[in-house]
Amino acid sequence: VTNADEVASASGPVRPTSGASVVHRPIDGLGARLTGGLLGDWQQRNRSASIPLALRQLEAAGNLANLRLAISGVGGTYRGPVFMDSDIYKTLEAISWEQGREPSEELAEFAAQTTALLRAAQLADGYLNSYKQVTGNPHFEKLESSHELYCAGHLIQAAVAADRSCEGAALLGVATRFADLLVSRFLGTKGGLDGHPIVETALVELYRQTGTAEYLQLARQFVDQRGYGLIGDSGFGIRYLQDHLPVRDSPTEVGHAVRALYLESGVTDVAVETGDAALLATSVTRWDDMVATKTALTGGNGSRHSGEAFGDGYELPPDRAYNETCAAIASFHWSWRMLLATGLGQYADLMERILYNGFAASTATDGQRFFYVNPLQRRVDHFEDDDPGRRREWFSCACCPPNIMRLVSSLGHYVATTSGDSLYVHLLTGSQITGEVRGRKFSLDVSTDYPWSGSAELTVRSCPETECGLAIRVPGWSRLVTVTLNGEPITAHSGDDGYLVIRRQWRPGDVVAATLDLRPRLTFPNRRIDALRGTAAIERGPLVYCFEPADQAAGVDVEDLALGSDAPAERTAELAGIGKTVIIDAQAVHLPAQDPPYSENLAPGPDGSATAVAIPYFQWDNRDGRAMRVWMPYEATKP
Amino acid sequence: VTNADEVASASGPVRPTSGASVVHRPIDGLGARLTGGLLGDWQQRNRSASIPLALRQLEAAGNLANLRLAISGVGGTYRGPVFMDSDIYKTLEAISWEQGREPSEELAEFAAQTTALLRAAQLADGYLNSYKQVTGNPHFEKLESSHELYCAGHLIQAAVAADRSCEGAALLGVATRFADLLVSRFLGTKGGLDGHPIVETALVELYRQTGTAEYLQLARQFVDQRGYGLIGDSGFGIRYLQDHLPVRDSPTEVGHAVRALYLESGVTDVAVETGDAALLATSVTRWDDMVATKTALTGGNGSRHSGEAFGDGYELPPDRAYNETCAAIASFHWSWRMLLATGLGQYADLMERILYNGFAASTATDGQRFFYVNPLQRRVDHFEDDDPGRRREWFSCACCPPNIMRLVSSLGHYVATTSGDSLYVHLLTGSQITGEVRGRKFSLDVSTDYPWSGSAELTVRSCPETECGLAIRVPGWSRLVTVTLNGEPITAHSGDDGYLVIRRQWRPGDVVAATLDLRPRLTFPNRRIDALRGTAAIERGPLVYCFEPADQAAGVDVEDLALGSDAPAERTAELAGIGKTVIIDAQAVHLPAQDPPYSENLAPGPDGSATAVAIPYFQWDNRDGRAMRVWMPYEATKP
Repeated sequence: VTNADEVASASGPVRPTSGASVVHRPIDGLGARLTGGLLGDWQQRNRSASIPLALRQLEAAGNLANLRLAISGVGGTYRGPVFMDSDIYKTLEAISWEQGREPSEELAEFAAQTTALLRAAQLADGYLNSYKQVTGNPHFEKLESSHELYCAGHLIQAAVAADRSCEGAALLGVATRFADLLVSRFLGTKGGLDGHPIVETALVELYRQTGTAEYLQLARQFVDQRGYGLIGDSGFGIRYLQDHLPVRDSPTEVGHAVRALYLESGVTDVAVETGDAALLATSVTRWDDMVATKTALTGGNGSRHSGEAFGDGYELPPDRAYNETCAAIASFHWSWRMLLATGLGQYADLMERILYNGFAASTATDGQRFFYVNPLQRRVDHFEDDDPGRRREWFSCACCPPNIMRLVSSLGHYVATTSGDSLYVHLLTGSQITGEVRGRKFSLDVSTDYPWSGSAELTVRSCPETECGLAIRVPGWSRLVTVTLNGEPITAHSGDDGYLVIRRQWRPGDVVAATLDLRPRLTFPNRRIDALRGTAAIERGPLVYCFEPADQAAGVDVEDLALGSDAPAERTAELAGIGKTVIIDAQAVHLPAQDPPYSENLAPGPDGSATAVAIPYFQWDNRDGRAMRVWMPYEATKP
Repeated sequence: VTNADEVASASGPVRPTSGASVVHRPIDGLGARLTGGLLGDWQQRNRSASIPLALRQLEAAGNLANLRLAISGVGGTYRGPVFMDSDIYKTLEAISWEQGREPSEELAEFAAQTTALLRAAQLADGYLNSYKQVTGNPHFEKLESSHELYCAGHLIQAAVAADRSCEGAALLGVATRFADLLVSRFLGTKGGLDGHPIVETALVELYRQTGTAEYLQLARQFVDQRGYGLIGDSGFGIRYLQDHLPVRDSPTEVGHAVRALYLESGVTDVAVETGDAALLATSVTRWDDMVATKTALTGGNGSRHSGEAFGDGYELPPDRAYNETCAAIASFHWSWRMLLATGLGQYADLMERILYNGFAASTATDGQRFFYVNPLQRRVDHFEDDDPGRRREWFSCACCPPNIMRLVSSLGHYVATTSGDSLYVHLLTGSQITGEVRGRKFSLDVSTDYPWSGSAELTVRSCPETECGLAIRVPGWSRLVTVTLNGEPITAHSGDDGYLVIRRQWRPGDVVAATLDLRPRLTFPNRRIDALRGTAAIERGPLVYCFEPADQAAGVDVEDLALGSDAPAERTAELAGIGKTVIIDAQAVHLPAQDPPYSENLAPGPDGSATAVAIPYFQWDNRDGRAMRVWMPYEATKP
């Protein structure tokens, strides 16, 4: 195992410049090395099962073939949607983070070969887009739907990752040549807004990596030009593209959820790099509104299949939720930037909610099948034209799988930050963390089985020789946190920012043991969420739970159960098709059948007691693929 | 005023042949002449405001221009979607029913001119479709999306209406020439199923009008060939087109709601004309399932914007309901056929529910703006790409407005039927009804202000000189019906079929007075309808009520109210923008604000009393166009 200390020059996504207006800074080096537990297991699975699948699929689906055709110039049959290149770029980004963690010859070879293809396909002026080059359609036209700058953005992100992971500058060269073309073509003009954001945040990252100020200027221009009707309608209306209002005037997330949330990463990046507090404040407003009125319990966003879009405020149907996997990733990326900018734990709370629920559910236990759509309820007779209802290996629009891979490969970078003279731990997970405070290394080993267990031991390996802080995020749901230092109970209160900070002159070998309260809890929806009225869900720690037919007693239909008010009980289990889990047995009542759709009579009350059995939401659809529900009817009374 | 007796040769839609397996038969002549009240007013408004608007729009939107282009052969710029001809046909059908009621020179001139255009555009082989003729695309290709047989179906329906309304046989000639082409091209082959049904029911009606057996045979073939993958995928999947299962094997409505329900009219028509009880039984199964699990309180169908489609069972979101106006019309048409086939009042119950709610809401008070989508809830911040949220004059896909017009123009034909020696009154409305039983006229004058009032007087004008029955439908919601005969109370029970039958030797001048129980009532949803859990709605007679901000006390937000269990009170009113109505004041409670989207605490209980003010759903969006909701939170307890 490579030691984190030995590869300190590698770094991860989102590296604000020294002048950026941020409260927190990512830690150098590998961030944290995940050493086991759920996140570490996911990262291993991602490397051993998911990424190899992507390499096969990029060949099978035609992405690489498109690139080879582009090298020969116009002609041949382009395959797939116009943004096929972006799947390659996301995969390259994942590979770079993997190589930064632990180099692999096979991955290096794929990256080198693919980078060579990209270099060969890139035109003399820096332009690169296999769709346009194979079809011969004019460059930078129909930007409302061409995804040219979107693909450029993903290229840039992959190149920045390669450079930060010491994978060599070849891909960075391709990216800067294309970025230079974008600067010369668009900076100072009104002719270039892509219908699908991501180039904004990508250009800021490229600025951070290269120091070229024009990239930041262009990113800012793209952010500021949105909302003036410069894009045009791609057929879904201008809200779909977030071109309905200037970003600075927009109070709430609307339109295509992935686009809206990718844009926010760019907005936040531009704000912190330009010191634009007013711009950041608009992101804060939208984030608050999104979390209060447009986010599912799983952290998912996008209430509508139509337009893959945000709905109205409080429109949060569990069955019809779209909650695209890419939207979860985009929201995670945005909240990380907000966390750096503000230092508030609420952003990490949402990241964790997404990570263990809306995002984690996207991937099957075997790491080789994926959800594009992540509802919180599926009826037994479910049918939908735009969603197969079960996970699939790949998609004709395969944006999600390689997006999942690049996030999982980079997960370690989201575990901790530094702020002032303190090291902040945001995600409690088995890991080795090495930050730098007061110019000295501050290293920890974190040992925990979280989120299965609420206990964690943080052992100091090296530390500055002056007083400094160690901060642990206390999730909003944890009613009780107990902390000991070297075995002695200490009183520690978390601040308004959501972190519990222990300040002292640390010694190597110091052990902080923290225990979060993971007792299963009933969660109730806000009364304004019409689609959830009269229901309750079960959560345990960061995990949202769900009910599948496979776990219920024989003859018990999930649709005939209502949760009661008794505290749910938990038990650890190993389930076929799922593996390790913590099952929850919830007190429930049985509801009698009721025929008429509408009646002058209230639905009859319960006619018996029952137990409703729940598993973590992220583990659903790994068995028979039938019904599922997170939110259950709630009946405080007993039969 | 033309007397109904004088135009007995005119007749309406759906005329089963003498050999058809039906329990009820439409009455001859005008069916019923609407003499006032809500339905009569709507019919007058339709004639004076809506149809003139259609005549202008058919010119402005290019429908008639397309037809003129088609006369010149291939060339010129076709305007609008491929089915623009169908808007013309629906308008012609409406005009024919109007002409049957009361001829107008202006309408006659439009019909004559347009029929002349159609005759001129029709090709020598009988083919007629302005889209294909202007663009030069091959005939009868891409039937999954070309709508050629769909347009043919509407042409046939218009022609049958013209012939039944004594408007002359010119349009019938155009239709039969096209129908003969369809027979020669498709009968006995496997090459012709349209992605959008309606030609099935149209061909049966043409068979009824002409006696040409091949039309019925072709209709039956089209019904029986569906479900074998002969259509192809138009991009929305084969369920969208009802090609997923043979009609005889399909247990539930799926896919595009209008298509599914138009198909059912054809299925029922084929079943009764061919005596195919097994086929009819499959329609019965689907109707029962649809009403139990896939129909909104307003009678609307289609829970999803995506694919304008039926959802899963019990998926009935009030806010996201699509409930296309055309689906309401299609369901009305289907239920009428089921009523004729079975004699069961439940079908007329649904027709009435649709008529006064899901259908009626489609049209503004002024008759000049229309809804395409008819949700049961709109939030104040509502936005949707595929629906403007308010009624509009016309649509780029303008299927709904002329469909509304043809139904309203023909409404009188749905008021009454005969069965055996009884005259059945299905819709209680101001009318003159003339049926024939035992070979003699049986005429009634119905005087009522229904649905504002529950009282109606039915005065016999002429009758057979032998005992016969007069039947009045007792809606499922009416808890109490009082009846007097010539002022004397009589005891009358409604049978299992939902009708109260009074048998006697009638005399001219006999007066039956019936009073339905219109007291406002609270209605609760089935517990399986997740989106409505914990809510109640208010109904009064056949009217579903809704809550708009305009009617609430100052400072009261509809979103902060929950209905209580007290009986609602009613008051008659005249509202600006709406006119005559009956307002309902419902006991309610005020709910305090609640911040977090999800919480360990149940939503706080009420903090005060309030009154929630409701108006009939069909009258919504005639004022400020803000929020609306039918289903309100329900709190049995008081603060």
